[in-house]
Amino acid sequence: MNTTATEIAHQLAWIAVDWGSSNLRAWGLDKHDHVIAHASSEKGMLSLKAADYEAELHRLVADWLPESGQINVMVCGMAGARQGWREAAYLPVPTRLDQLSQGAVMPTLSNDRLRVYLLPGLSQTRSAFAHFDVMRGEETQLAGLVADNASFSGLACLPGTHAKWATLESGAVTEFTTYLTGELYQLLARQSVLQHSIGNDDLNDPACRNAFISAVSEIYEAPETLSSRLFGLRAQDLLDGRLPSGEKRGAVLAARLSGLAIGLELSGACHERANDASITLIGNQTLCHRYTLALNAVGYQTQYLDGDDAVLNGLRLAYRALKA
Amino acid sequence: MNTTATEIAHQLAWIAVDWGSSNLRAWGLDKHDHVIAHASSEKGMLSLKAADYEAELHRLVADWLPESGQINVMVCGMAGARQGWREAAYLPVPTRLDQLSQGAVMPTLSNDRLRVYLLPGLSQTRSAFAHFDVMRGEETQLAGLVADNASFSGLACLPGTHAKWATLESGAVTEFTTYLTGELYQLLARQSVLQHSIGNDDLNDPACRNAFISAVSEIYEAPETLSSRLFGLRAQDLLDGRLPSGEKRGAVLAARLSGLAIGLELSGACHERANDASITLIGNQTLCHRYTLALNAVGYQTQYLDGDDAVLNGLRLAYRALKA
Repeated sequence: MNTTATEIAHQLAWIAVDWGSSNLRAWGLDKHDHVIAHASSEKGMLSLKAADYEAELHRLVADWLPESGQINVMVCGMAGARQGWREAAYLPVPTRLDQLSQGAVMPTLSNDRLRVYLLPGLSQTRSAFAHFDVMRGEETQLAGLVADNASFSGLACLPGTHAKWATLESGAVTEFTTYLTGELYQLLARQSVLQHSIGNDDLNDPACRNAFISAVSEIYEAPETLSSRLFGLRAQDLLDGRLPSGEKRGAVLAARLSGLAIGLELSGACHERANDASITLIGNQTLCHRYTLALNAVGYQTQYLDGDDAVLNGLRLAYRALKA
Repeated sequence: MNTTATEIAHQLAWIAVDWGSSNLRAWGLDKHDHVIAHASSEKGMLSLKAADYEAELHRLVADWLPESGQINVMVCGMAGARQGWREAAYLPVPTRLDQLSQGAVMPTLSNDRLRVYLLPGLSQTRSAFAHFDVMRGEETQLAGLVADNASFSGLACLPGTHAKWATLESGAVTEFTTYLTGELYQLLARQSVLQHSIGNDDLNDPACRNAFISAVSEIYEAPETLSSRLFGLRAQDLLDGRLPSGEKRGAVLAARLSGLAIGLELSGACHERANDASITLIGNQTLCHRYTLALNAVGYQTQYLDGDDAVLNGLRLAYRALKA
């Protein structure tokens, strides 16, 4: 993408934004929905007060704007959270993913060069079959799945600090579940009694990969043993003469801890689910590969959709629905 | 206990010490093993270097010592850890609890008024039926169980930051398991995404008690749902209109989190165990009562032994074995 500033201003049709907790990414798109510009910053929701959002957005995209006229900005993520720019209330599931923009809210701007739409997240309330849950940002990645296939049905998994699993039926999210997996791993690895034993794993290393897969399988079969297997990592570090030494020791134990955390998630998410259909993993390639290893180990096949492609396609879908 | 300093020095036969990670407790005993003096400090293993132990011990007990002669000191806990005063290597299970002193080590002292014995902990190595595990300090509380009943057989549970479950057969520990329960609760309650939702529970309050018991039962039946139920606490805080408000809200959610952590432990510890015999809980009364509520909820009866009584009786048993 080697477009000059003048060309960008000439071709810009609208702007797509993914505003996360820790960062902000913006894409300039032409009338064919092709990306012609890209910018990002570290100013995520956690670093901003409501009054700061407009200026930060403008700072990122000002150079793209044509001389006159208004540009629409479709925003997903934490800018629409209660602690964000302006709250875009959750849409309750079941929700059709091509209708997210129906819940969009528009913050008031002092400068009218931009017209901003903040997309809603999804919520789920308790019933006999489901429990309270929320997502914000992930619904747009799921919409990216549907952008290519309007009647998509199947199970999607978005790994991360708060991993999300969603059931889609004919292009709608019918139910979803959040697993604290990534956060659990970080807390245990860095702040618990295990911190002196856990290093950084490398799943390309056979010893790490085997430790990861074994841990996934063990906890998948026996999730009730989680609390004891966690302490067992520390005990193993103290007692197991067969562990490698030095950095490799910490790597193998990290791989085991990762396997326990992810395997526990899978035992909940895949519980009593048929394994005839593949699970669509959406997100960062390295993390999705880790989940593929784990899912394969317990008998499931996967497909992969890049997280950035997904969010952009979801924003495209939302924008098209708005303009329709 | 209203003994004067002179009387103490006159009657003192030996000293019992429980040297923990965060504190130190010492008891002066007469020739009938009755407690005639008590002292404590905050100087646990985490605050001391190896060279500091002798001085701290002497500081606590110097006033008790008779004018001449040597006094034996029986010590359990972290003073015998690798990062303690002097390492008392673990005894591997199965271990008879009346033989702990056989593994005692004696640190070198500059002052010979005291003769110190550091008791060993217990270890367990991996087999087809067991996994790596360690304990240090709890073995002496278990010995307290055996002090009253030399051929004690049954299941004992010592709740805490690292809860321990031990199977005793005819006065010996045959196998044991550590659960990271207390630490998991603290990490999640104070450092995770849940920290803004979790307050301080009060199990005397019916709403808290019901929330606790429900959570125990739910996770006991479905341990694979742990990661999702943890995030569910946050979602519930955001969405559940039926939760009380203010401090009571945080209390109820804290009770649920506690129930999830403890219920997970029970699902592992009680898995496939007959519930015809009661489980002996050893430790702090409030925490043991919490475990009793949880165990009763999933069909087990309990007995209670005060943790301080247990450790003192265990030290008595070890001392008697040494002198025999």
